[in-house]
Amino acid sequence: MANVNCNPNSASDTLTLDGIRDSLIRQEDSIVFSLIERARFPLNGKMYLHNHASIPGFSGSLVEFIVRETEDVQAKAGRYENPEENPFFPENLPRPLVHPHKYPKVLHPSGASINMNKAIWDFYFKEFLPLLVSDGDDGNYAATAASDLACLQALSRRIHCGKYVAEVKFRDAPNEYEGPIRSQERDTLMELLTFKAVEEQVKKRVEKKAMVFGQEVTLNNTSGGGKHKIDPSLASLLYDKWVMPLTKEVEVEYLLRRLE
Amino acid sequence: MANVNCNPNSASDTLTLDGIRDSLIRQEDSIVFSLIERARFPLNGKMYLHNHASIPGFSGSLVEFIVRETEDVQAKAGRYENPEENPFFPENLPRPLVHPHKYPKVLHPSGASINMNKAIWDFYFKEFLPLLVSDGDDGNYAATAASDLACLQALSRRIHCGKYVAEVKFRDAPNEYEGPIRSQERDTLMELLTFKAVEEQVKKRVEKKAMVFGQEVTLNNTSGGGKHKIDPSLASLLYDKWVMPLTKEVEVEYLLRRLE
Repeated sequence: MANVNCNPNSASDTLTLDGIRDSLIRQEDSIVFSLIERARFPLNGKMYLHNHASIPGFSGSLVEFIVRETEDVQAKAGRYENPEENPFFPENLPRPLVHPHKYPKVLHPSGASINMNKAIWDFYFKEFLPLLVSDGDDGNYAATAASDLACLQALSRRIHCGKYVAEVKFRDAPNEYEGPIRSQERDTLMELLTFKAVEEQVKKRVEKKAMVFGQEVTLNNTSGGGKHKIDPSLASLLYDKWVMPLTKEVEVEYLLRRLE
Repeated sequence: MANVNCNPNSASDTLTLDGIRDSLIRQEDSIVFSLIERARFPLNGKMYLHNHASIPGFSGSLVEFIVRETEDVQAKAGRYENPEENPFFPENLPRPLVHPHKYPKVLHPSGASINMNKAIWDFYFKEFLPLLVSDGDDGNYAATAASDLACLQALSRRIHCGKYVAEVKFRDAPNEYEGPIRSQERDTLMELLTFKAVEEQVKKRVEKKAMVFGQEVTLNNTSGGGKHKIDPSLASLLYDKWVMPLTKEVEVEYLLRRLE
């Protein structure tokens, strides 16, 4: 089993940059799978129109309704007790009905308040989704919204792992970060956290993953050629324009609060 | 966009065996993705124990609670208006809150009553899942149950497409089927619907898909080698032992009612 968690599984495991990297790499696969699955459906744009569905007692789009209600169910099952999980609609979430799992506490307490999901929601629906899917309406709103939620949750988990990246980087070199944290120098922190060569590798890898996982596999072909279920360059664009910048924003926000 | 629907998208499309086959092949990818994603988590066995979670006003396992509640949300969004979708808990499902999409009516009306989900639920949790995942408990119950639901829904959709397979086969050769239907000869119908060579191909293809989609993709490797996220032979076993037999059972049940 590949570990998807950035957080160590038990108190005896330690937080390491290698462990987090392995998790981030495995999460790339989940993100690519979720994009391929969303692209089975056309845009189904009516789902995203405010009050188009006219649901009694609810104001918003159908996708908002489905995500809110599904998050309620998952909150009851304890999803948001895991410090790696952040809800898109944190207001009025029901309390868990199950005994909470003991997640090792490795983050600085103020990290819990960082939630970048508003930005993720906006770029995903307004900018990225129209590039990913074809126009049209096939009526499969519930299945489409479930696919949207799978994409959003996979992206959110990946981006908020920035908290763990920042924590382990701080622990490995506190002297390097303390100065810019105390003087709240956002730009200096962003520079310290930016490694262009690594980012280029990530972009190339996710594009390759989209190509491999999106290929049409037949008993005859050996690899890659032919039609793809999504345009592989979209995976690279997604990481370049949104996933990596937002992860670094999470890291910077976390570090700015690290000495509180 | 690859079409995932067995049902034609509009009244002007016709039901063809080629169209259904394309859809079934595309659905193999969804099923394999869903298995790979479920295998990120260990068994998390407590979720499957009756009344372990002691949820007020609810009797059942935690996974049953999550699936029921999530199906309720999706029913409100109209999921089960689509004749290809069958709920696992059809009792007391809420009515859709959205205007129903006009799905072309191609099935015989009595086909709607065929729901094989009880059998799917049983083989998935009792027989298949313990082979797929590692032992252990990481507390991610909500995410694990959401992954279970994705597997169950993908399997259910594939297996119930048997209704469309049976309909198109009946239309293509009514004379061949009418005799055994009138005399309700289950075994003769099963023989008419069984093509061993095709089944062997399907098993080989899904195993290859599990290998391709489950491989660890790095910038250096070219294909396939090394660790896999799931044992590829499990995909073949799943199809051999459950998916194809249950699909044919749906086909037979459908044909037995076809002249009502």
